[in-house]
Amino acid sequence: MLGYAFMGKAHSYAFQTIKTITWPPPLEPRLIGIAGRNEEAVREAADRYGWEYATTDWRDLVADDRIGLFDNGGPNSLHAEPTIAAAEAGKHVVCEKPLGRDAGEAYEIWKRVAGTGVKHMCAFNYRFVPAVRLAREMIEAGELGEVRHFRGRYLQDWGDDPSLDTWRFDPDAAGSGALGDLMTHVVDLARFLNGEIDTVYGFAHTFLPGRRVDDAVEAAVEFANGSVGTLEATRFAHGRRNAFQWEINGTKGSLAFDMERLNELQVFRADGDRARGFKTVLVSEGNHPFWQHWWPPGHIIGWGDTFVHELHHMLHAIASDIAVAPYGADFEDGYRASEVCDAIVRGGRQAVTYRT
Amino acid sequence: MLGYAFMGKAHSYAFQTIKTITWPPPLEPRLIGIAGRNEEAVREAADRYGWEYATTDWRDLVADDRIGLFDNGGPNSLHAEPTIAAAEAGKHVVCEKPLGRDAGEAYEIWKRVAGTGVKHMCAFNYRFVPAVRLAREMIEAGELGEVRHFRGRYLQDWGDDPSLDTWRFDPDAAGSGALGDLMTHVVDLARFLNGEIDTVYGFAHTFLPGRRVDDAVEAAVEFANGSVGTLEATRFAHGRRNAFQWEINGTKGSLAFDMERLNELQVFRADGDRARGFKTVLVSEGNHPFWQHWWPPGHIIGWGDTFVHELHHMLHAIASDIAVAPYGADFEDGYRASEVCDAIVRGGRQAVTYRT
Amino acid sequence: MLGYAFMGKAHSYAFQTIKTITWPPPLEPRLIGIAGRNEEAVREAADRYGWEYATTDWRDLVADDRIGLFDNGGPNSLHAEPTIAAAEAGKHVVCEKPLGRDAGEAYEIWKRVAGTGVKHMCAFNYRFVPAVRLAREMIEAGELGEVRHFRGRYLQDWGDDPSLDTWRFDPDAAGSGALGDLMTHVVDLARFLNGEIDTVYGFAHTFLPGRRVDDAVEAAVEFANGSVGTLEATRFAHGRRNAFQWEINGTKGSLAFDMERLNELQVFRADGDRARGFKTVLVSEGNHPFWQHWWPPGHIIGWGDTFVHELHHMLHAIASDIAVAPYGADFEDGYRASEVCDAIVRGGRQAVTYRT
Amino acid sequence: MLGYAFMGKAHSYAFQTIKTITWPPPLEPRLIGIAGRNEEAVREAADRYGWEYATTDWRDLVADDRIGLFDNGGPNSLHAEPTIAAAEAGKHVVCEKPLGRDAGEAYEIWKRVAGTGVKHMCAFNYRFVPAVRLAREMIEAGELGEVRHFRGRYLQDWGDDPSLDTWRFDPDAAGSGALGDLMTHVVDLARFLNGEIDTVYGFAHTFLPGRRVDDAVEAAVEFANGSVGTLEATRFAHGRRNAFQWEINGTKGSLAFDMERLNELQVFRADGDRARGFKTVLVSEGNHPFWQHWWPPGHIIGWGDTFVHELHHMLHAIASDIAVAPYGADFEDGYRASEVCDAIVRGGRQAVTYRT
Repeated sequence: MLGYAFMGKAHSYAFQTIKTITWPPPLEPRLIGIAGRNEEAVREAADRYGWEYATTDWRDLVADDRIGLFDNGGPNSLHAEPTIAAAEAGKHVVCEKPLGRDAGEAYEIWKRVAGTGVKHMCAFNYRFVPAVRLAREMIEAGELGEVRHFRGRYLQDWGDDPSLDTWRFDPDAAGSGALGDLMTHVVDLARFLNGEIDTVYGFAHTFLPGRRVDDAVEAAVEFANGSVGTLEATRFAHGRRNAFQWEINGTKGSLAFDMERLNELQVFRADGDRARGFKTVLVSEGNHPFWQHWWPPGHIIGWGDTFVHELHHMLHAIASDIAVAPYGADFEDGYRASEVCDAIVRGGRQAVTYRT
Repeated sequence: MLGYAFMGKAHSYAFQTIKTITWPPPLEPRLIGIAGRNEEAVREAADRYGWEYATTDWRDLVADDRIGLFDNGGPNSLHAEPTIAAAEAGKHVVCEKPLGRDAGEAYEIWKRVAGTGVKHMCAFNYRFVPAVRLAREMIEAGELGEVRHFRGRYLQDWGDDPSLDTWRFDPDAAGSGALGDLMTHVVDLARFLNGEIDTVYGFAHTFLPGRRVDDAVEAAVEFANGSVGTLEATRFAHGRRNAFQWEINGTKGSLAFDMERLNELQVFRADGDRARGFKTVLVSEGNHPFWQHWWPPGHIIGWGDTFVHELHHMLHAIASDIAVAPYGADFEDGYRASEVCDAIVRGGRQAVTYRT
Repeated sequence: MLGYAFMGKAHSYAFQTIKTITWPPPLEPRLIGIAGRNEEAVREAADRYGWEYATTDWRDLVADDRIGLFDNGGPNSLHAEPTIAAAEAGKHVVCEKPLGRDAGEAYEIWKRVAGTGVKHMCAFNYRFVPAVRLAREMIEAGELGEVRHFRGRYLQDWGDDPSLDTWRFDPDAAGSGALGDLMTHVVDLARFLNGEIDTVYGFAHTFLPGRRVDDAVEAAVEFANGSVGTLEATRFAHGRRNAFQWEINGTKGSLAFDMERLNELQVFRADGDRARGFKTVLVSEGNHPFWQHWWPPGHIIGWGDTFVHELHHMLHAIASDIAVAPYGADFEDGYRASEVCDAIVRGGRQAVTYRT
Repeated sequence: MLGYAFMGKAHSYAFQTIKTITWPPPLEPRLIGIAGRNEEAVREAADRYGWEYATTDWRDLVADDRIGLFDNGGPNSLHAEPTIAAAEAGKHVVCEKPLGRDAGEAYEIWKRVAGTGVKHMCAFNYRFVPAVRLAREMIEAGELGEVRHFRGRYLQDWGDDPSLDTWRFDPDAAGSGALGDLMTHVVDLARFLNGEIDTVYGFAHTFLPGRRVDDAVEAAVEFANGSVGTLEATRFAHGRRNAFQWEINGTKGSLAFDMERLNELQVFRADGDRARGFKTVLVSEGNHPFWQHWWPPGHIIGWGDTFVHELHHMLHAIASDIAVAPYGADFEDGYRASEVCDAIVRGGRQAVTYRT
């Protein structure tokens, strides 16, 4: 594990919990080493989360032959080199999003890692929300018919404070602001649920003088399947803490979702029922995705539990030698999300061109 | 009154109800004549709604000296000529939206009518939803601080049917599809709540082969006040019947609204209260807009009642010789909404230029 | 019409609106006379609402041969005598709820009026909410299966103020407090949707020293059909303005409702759909009750419009000589609601005995 | 740990997670032994959840000197003997609810265990929902003023199936049905938030022929503080999976909650704000209960996480030698809940008498 802060905690929690919840586990994780720059903090993290050793040099992890899976939860500027090095050392790799600081870097990571033959996953954890997976399954089964619209927005509100100073506002460390942090999630779920984006019309915007990354991103988009919609990401939507909301409308029905109520999926079916309307589905039934190992129906799970499903998926891919995609995002997905994001930043009308 | 169908019924209901609800009324309406093309239908409408006579020629109304207010609820292609003629005959005029079939026609109507000195109102009735007016008052009072975002979408779902055939799908009669019908409302409330739009990035889209008007419109936008957002209008959002939803985020708070729950306003205040969240305000208190004459708190009103407020406003403007704007939309507002809509249709990035 | 205040306004609005909305109307109402104690106020009401004359003596109305329908919206103490007199003069009668100040008085009114052979309606207007009627139709059609539970509560919050002084707090004028004002509504819809109540376990309670009527009523109940539940009425639920909420659970599904969102019905069907949950039905479709004459789907109606449906129903019953019940409440329903209420007030466990 | 099924899993998850989330932990739990009747199942549970050994005889755990805390998650009939034995062996004890199968048994457990001087906790985990604790803190701080109403209902829907056969339907094993399983939770939170219950008016009911425990419980209640309300518990509310809903109304405000959205608290303040309504508070801020160690705001937690807080509280009580109550429920609370439940079952009006 590289990184002991927010993502370090979330991934450690997940590795610990896999066995308890998803029994029997595909592989039983052993938490060997964790790396981070601050010696005291990384040592505490190792103690707290149960890693066998701590180091301030991620190269120690790359060199450790006992480690089979390298999980990179560090700042964006530390995605490329360690991830590529670990893959080239034969380790499977998980890397937090955005994969690179721009599409070029993401492409480089994807191509270098894919060339090694290891499993690679870009940690778009929201694919592993039960309601999101259920949506995907319903769409795959044709329950929405032909899709007409996808609209997605990721609204947070912590950015409207000039005194904030984290690596997330440093262009070198982060690459971008709301774009890489939030819009990549929006684009990833748009692609996961509705396929490729062909054309974007939009822009990135910075509100605060002196801020060096974007604060908000706005776009109207056309999808390859003929549907159209809007995408938005912002850190300036007061009152919205983690409101990643999306809606998809098809000829046979619609789905809507809000991450602040991540256990719920709104489902509309154009089935001729006189009692017509959106159904609030509490996605917690035994026949719902990921739920076979959890609690009885109606006993909801939390945001952190998406990582349990995500890393379980990675362990399963490794154990059974199957592809991470399409239910998990691999590095190609990580790259493609960046390509759409960069097209929006270029501004105005932009056709999206994906490299292969 | 010109028009006896949907808008004819809504406006007739309103004229009848003004006295009962808003006592004492600014003027007591007398329903003199109603015009429409189908003789039988217009005669039935006169009987049903209490108009003194029916005619198949709107020129009869223009020529009738007893008529002081001409209310045009006919198809879009019948907006320009009768409205201008009525104004030139010295009658005050109300005209349904969109004012013209495009910005050019809307400009012509505005300029011709404004030149006569009569009162003119473009019937953007959603300015007269109590929750929308409350929002405007809160914004004017500075309760949101500096605005960062406006996002609006008007979602309906009746358009996804190739067999439909009404004047609303005829380019000559309607001018456009979702654009003039729905997006003008979105743009009008965007302007009402957040001021002028400077730049749009977007497009109009038609899903059904053979359909001759747009089915959906998508845009990312920049406002003159520095805020940004998205605008959308569609007749293809299955499950959304009349979901005109908007949200506005500022440095001190946020507001959100859905026309399907038009009695409610969602209010967030960044006031440091530990119990932090959006408040569901049932806009039905004695100190809320338009409510002094209605029912006790919590006893909600309906969509049709927005017309009561709107026409009451027009009667008040006439009786007191005050301007229709800014709380009502006048023909300049009708024109400006069209200018934004036409810019979106032109596609890509477009600066919006308003004629004066 | 007897009474010009809250109910006078609501009923007048309804009589005016019937023709506009429910075309053709069963009978075209002519508003002849209105009575009230305050001469100036009743005269203004006549002018405002369009009644041909005003009087301070309701006996004038009883004596007026042109009047065929007597609508009693006066205080509860004025329900018995004028209503009986009007019926004995051969007029059809509508009387506001509670029919009498207690079950004895209600029984007397029912029996005396029924003996004359006129049509009689107790104005439980909530039977005429489209969502409530839809619920009734679904239950009648067996869509809920066997009912297990009914829980209803009518929550208001204006009572928690010792300075309030209206006839509603005067035992002689009102008979009771929340009991007659609110609990009768709860009992009426409980009976309308779920049949007779056999046994009650509960009590009435007064919070404020010096208040002479009950402030809240609480009960657990058993229905004749084997289902059980709770009933509650209060004027002391801060934040609930007009929250008449009920839920009914059956072996095949459930329904839930809140009067503050009276256009919506929550519908759960135990139909085996993997997407399982309560559907928010916006009761505004062409095939929904009362909607054939209103607006397009999704364009909601208001609380006052329930009276349009109610009085239309009464006119229809008169015109076609059909029974007011079961879709409207007649005076037997008015009496039976009082019998349940009085049983709760007696306290503890009480079997409910209905006189016939 | 006694019990490896539902509660065994939930408590094991919690013990594992305490260190990761609540850093530094008050004590670092070591999972020594787990007991259960089915040898294979208990061995698998030990492997899965990380217990050092498994046994089919709970007396092994009582005899194991290394064990300082005995956690009883077995069926209700196994609460008394093992819990008392463990306490008498000097171990601190946690016991699932209901403490005993009736008030008499609960009293016996409480008195016997309290006599030993160990810490005892009755596992009413819902006291450890952040929103519930926040409610308690707001009430303690006087933010609701004088309380007028408490209404609580715990609605589930899995019971309406005659083919079900678990220990939960066996009177010997369970003691009761919805009463001990669900109504104890309702009574516990009623007491936690609003103090003692003086009088109950109600009954228990069994719907299915042949079922030997109650299916539903209904009551109207009076509290010692002068407030009144209703309490309900049922396994027959179709569509409600885990809907433990409560609302409390006071002279200064109201709170409302639904366990299916356990991260949210509805807050109404009678503060004179023109924008008046219930606020949806996402209880996930750094200054909210239990949140200092979790995720950023808006990143919600799950039902299972209430056990993390609960067992952390127990470890803290042990480590710091402080009382489990009032924020946790001790065995006196377990007993008192049973006393109220038994009074409801006796039927009709019942004063509740608590033994001391």
